[in-house]
Amino acid sequence: MVRKIRSCVRGGRFSSPQIPVGIGDDAALFRPRPRGELVLTCDWFLEGTHFLRDKHPADSVGWKCLARALSDVAAMGGVPRCFLLSLTLPSSLTGRWLDEFLVGLQRASRKFQCVLVGGDTTRNEKVLINVTVVGEVRTGRAALRSGARPGDVVFVSGRLGEAELGLRVLRHNKRAVRSNISALKRHFYPEPRLVLGRWLAEKRLATSMMDLSDGLSADLPRLCAAAGVGARINEAQIPAPQIPLVLGLPEVNPVQLALHGGDDYELLFTVGPNRATFLPRSFAGIPLTAIGLMTREKRIMLVDPSGRQRRLDLGGWDPFRTER
Amino acid sequence: MVRKIRSCVRGGRFSSPQIPVGIGDDAALFRPRPRGELVLTCDWFLEGTHFLRDKHPADSVGWKCLARALSDVAAMGGVPRCFLLSLTLPSSLTGRWLDEFLVGLQRASRKFQCVLVGGDTTRNEKVLINVTVVGEVRTGRAALRSGARPGDVVFVSGRLGEAELGLRVLRHNKRAVRSNISALKRHFYPEPRLVLGRWLAEKRLATSMMDLSDGLSADLPRLCAAAGVGARINEAQIPAPQIPLVLGLPEVNPVQLALHGGDDYELLFTVGPNRATFLPRSFAGIPLTAIGLMTREKRIMLVDPSGRQRRLDLGGWDPFRTER
Repeated sequence: MVRKIRSCVRGGRFSSPQIPVGIGDDAALFRPRPRGELVLTCDWFLEGTHFLRDKHPADSVGWKCLARALSDVAAMGGVPRCFLLSLTLPSSLTGRWLDEFLVGLQRASRKFQCVLVGGDTTRNEKVLINVTVVGEVRTGRAALRSGARPGDVVFVSGRLGEAELGLRVLRHNKRAVRSNISALKRHFYPEPRLVLGRWLAEKRLATSMMDLSDGLSADLPRLCAAAGVGARINEAQIPAPQIPLVLGLPEVNPVQLALHGGDDYELLFTVGPNRATFLPRSFAGIPLTAIGLMTREKRIMLVDPSGRQRRLDLGGWDPFRTER
Repeated sequence: MVRKIRSCVRGGRFSSPQIPVGIGDDAALFRPRPRGELVLTCDWFLEGTHFLRDKHPADSVGWKCLARALSDVAAMGGVPRCFLLSLTLPSSLTGRWLDEFLVGLQRASRKFQCVLVGGDTTRNEKVLINVTVVGEVRTGRAALRSGARPGDVVFVSGRLGEAELGLRVLRHNKRAVRSNISALKRHFYPEPRLVLGRWLAEKRLATSMMDLSDGLSADLPRLCAAAGVGARINEAQIPAPQIPLVLGLPEVNPVQLALHGGDDYELLFTVGPNRATFLPRSFAGIPLTAIGLMTREKRIMLVDPSGRQRRLDLGGWDPFRTER
């Protein structure tokens, strides 16, 4: 298993002058660039919790376990450099499943220029994955959660709720439509917003930033709490997914998906009122949408299209509150 | 759960000027010192594989999950700086078990001056732990596995097989003798050889080095393979454990324990023949014992007290070869 992973690394263009020692020693060595800070993050990706072995293709498991962790680096405005992979597998999956997993992992690794430098493997009846990513950011330029001020404009990148829509399609197991809906792709192969995050941090545009992993309704309260502020969000402005009729999901409300759906890995960020006016409507093809304002009152209000306000119900994912 | 972990961190002396952002943001930030390389390593610590919930006290699980990962930093000659904790628990363990776990973790964190800066938690029916440690080493001074040359003297620190002896005591469940045997302590609360490892690397004494986690018979072949050499080990020189009669384990052979027992976290290293003569017999209270020589022939031979040679059988732990 280690041999397979190692040969996959050697076969690829997984090398960098910043990494004098990679896989195969007790630990990896990494040479940081001068005048930088390291961005450190790790993420679980567990069978049964974050993915299902019979529903998720192995290559999407490989892609997504890395993409999720990279999204945290994006949310700090960092540039990913290398990662550690901790993996357990049942013996029955060390053949084709592992090969396909490594294809997805390697694709993500190349696309986002993040080098596999080490990890730990052992046997287990379940597929357990933990990924640690090391990134870099210019000292003092990282975008934190805590910087928002009342009056700052709240932005999101991309379209929210599409990954959740993909999950619903997957659950309803509608094979006929699976292959050609973008929502499923969003669910299987999310794209961390690295270039956008870096630009927002480097240019000091974002006063605060985080990634949307658990859903807007779960993550926005965290951003507000970190800054000691509240928010007023205009429901009509939230970029919700379009639900193709062919999916046959008439009961699904796009706004609810956008509010409570997880796994989008879009960026949620705030911009000071003066600079917000000049923010482009998209960056590198990714829409940037103003959805509301930060407020002094420490609560989160949703304004519906008729102007009525209501408190936002928490609907995102909290593993210790409810079963998913 | 996150609150508990965070308050445990805040209550302790878990802070450092190298860490501008710790737990609570999308990622942690770490400021590396100039002229250094980072040492990156991660380790699984899984219920049922690496520990048993009903046999291992929660505080030893907390201690050991960090100590194991620190041992890899020791084996590179690095100084640990910070770590990430990925933890899953069943809801039933978020009370007293988690409190005790954090006591052990915090004790190790303080003792080895390694600061908790982030991680990931979720719910699971099993206790799953993954620890990533970030350390530092002066550029070019890390001790690698690959540096051994034929003629180098093979050394081990401490006494081998004591942790395995502790595990046997634990399995036989001899409550009467549990509390006062040192082997059990070695199994529950191993001490990574950080000060020794750093000294051997800084002074360029070790031509190669690794830590003994899976047992001498499993780890020595890895050291040899990395350098493309073999070894000849004198059985009588291996520092084997003393087995107190009170344990009632007459069938246990100390040399077998020392050869094949895992979890010692002692250092295995090689020293050039000229410098080996001057190596002290102990360092900071830890015995340093020459057990053999590296050889040009790529096989590992054991010489018994009568002078007979035999090939070393692999007996350490390989999770994909046999059930433990």
